[in-house]
Amino acid sequence: MPLVRIDIDASTSQEVRGTICNAVYDAMTSTARVPAHDKFMVVSEHGVGDLVFPQEGYLGIKYTPGIVFIQITWNAGRTTDVKKAFYKKVAEDIHAKTGIRREDVWINLVEVSPENWSFGNGEMQYAPK
Amino acid sequence: MPLVRIDIDASTSQEVRGTICNAVYDAMTSTARVPAHDKFMVVSEHGVGDLVFPQEGYLGIKYTPGIVFIQITWNAGRTTDVKKAFYKKVAEDIHAKTGIRREDVWINLVEVSPENWSFGNGEMQYAPK
Amino acid sequence: MPLVRIDIDASTSQEVRGTICNAVYDAMTSTARVPAHDKFMVVSEHGVGDLVFPQEGYLGIKYTPGIVFIQITWNAGRTTDVKKAFYKKVAEDIHAKTGIRREDVWINLVEVSPENWSFGNGEMQYAPK
Repeated sequence: MPLVRIDIDASTSQEVRGTICNAVYDAMTSTARVPAHDKFMVVSEHGVGDLVFPQEGYLGIKYTPGIVFIQITWNAGRTTDVKKAFYKKVAEDIHAKTGIRREDVWINLVEVSPENWSFGNGEMQYAPK
Repeated sequence: MPLVRIDIDASTSQEVRGTICNAVYDAMTSTARVPAHDKFMVVSEHGVGDLVFPQEGYLGIKYTPGIVFIQITWNAGRTTDVKKAFYKKVAEDIHAKTGIRREDVWINLVEVSPENWSFGNGEMQYAPK
Repeated sequence: MPLVRIDIDASTSQEVRGTICNAVYDAMTSTARVPAHDKFMVVSEHGVGDLVFPQEGYLGIKYTPGIVFIQITWNAGRTTDVKKAFYKKVAEDIHAKTGIRREDVWINLVEVSPENWSFGNGEMQYAPK
């Protein structure tokens, strides 16, 4: 069910974009019980200056123009521990596979209800029974 | 009040974009009691590969690069039946008016409170009384 | 913590984009107790026709193609009065500093929990104690 929005600098190659998407998908399925093949993502590219971060850093973390914003809408119900494991795996894997700094992997979660999705065909696939 | 985000392939014509927007608006007003003229939408276009869907399909549905992601933020309170009717009408109308496959109409809802909107002028138009 | 999404017409200059971002940041920190340096924003530009608003206006407000959509995801817990003050300051400041009409400043808030953020490094910086 998740809808993953990834906002990146326009200079990011198609290959790196794909690697980021795969890393997020792998982390969702391996740490957060997202079902297999539930991979729906929207990548948006932005010109210089349109990805805004504090020059002074925040909470001790410094950012670069290579920052990757990842905003995920998914169903409520995941525990704090699951979310922690998810954040860690996303940052580790994106760093390991693309070289993007861990500090530049920025994640936000938005939580909704199961009836708030239609995966096509005009149906509510997760309707309450 | 809804804010409708529509993410589509960059090759989609202006005419089809407008038809999709009108179909979503018609469905919101006719099935989900969204007020007349409450039509605020942001269409974002994406290059090849930036709209990601599972090649294997999901829940028995197969997708194409013509997939249309529709994410709507609106007020909480609509019933499951209303949401079902809304999904159905959006997919039917987009298909009937543009030829886009019903399977490629993908919808997610995010729910907020009435005080979470300013429709311009720096005012909270739906303030509690 | 906020993630601020700003959707504007592609013709908007870099200078005006920066001024809008600064105005939103100033309003967040001065009226809504957002911490200093918590400035994370994604600006997306759109071609003609892709920012959709009602030609008839809504709730007595008329819009132009210069409309600015501001959608902010932040932590739940702010009062109605805080949100009112925030809307007012955003619209006033954007108008004063860029000339954009107050009517064209459109704002939506989405509320989440503190554990729903990772500000980089794979960590949950606002983890419950």
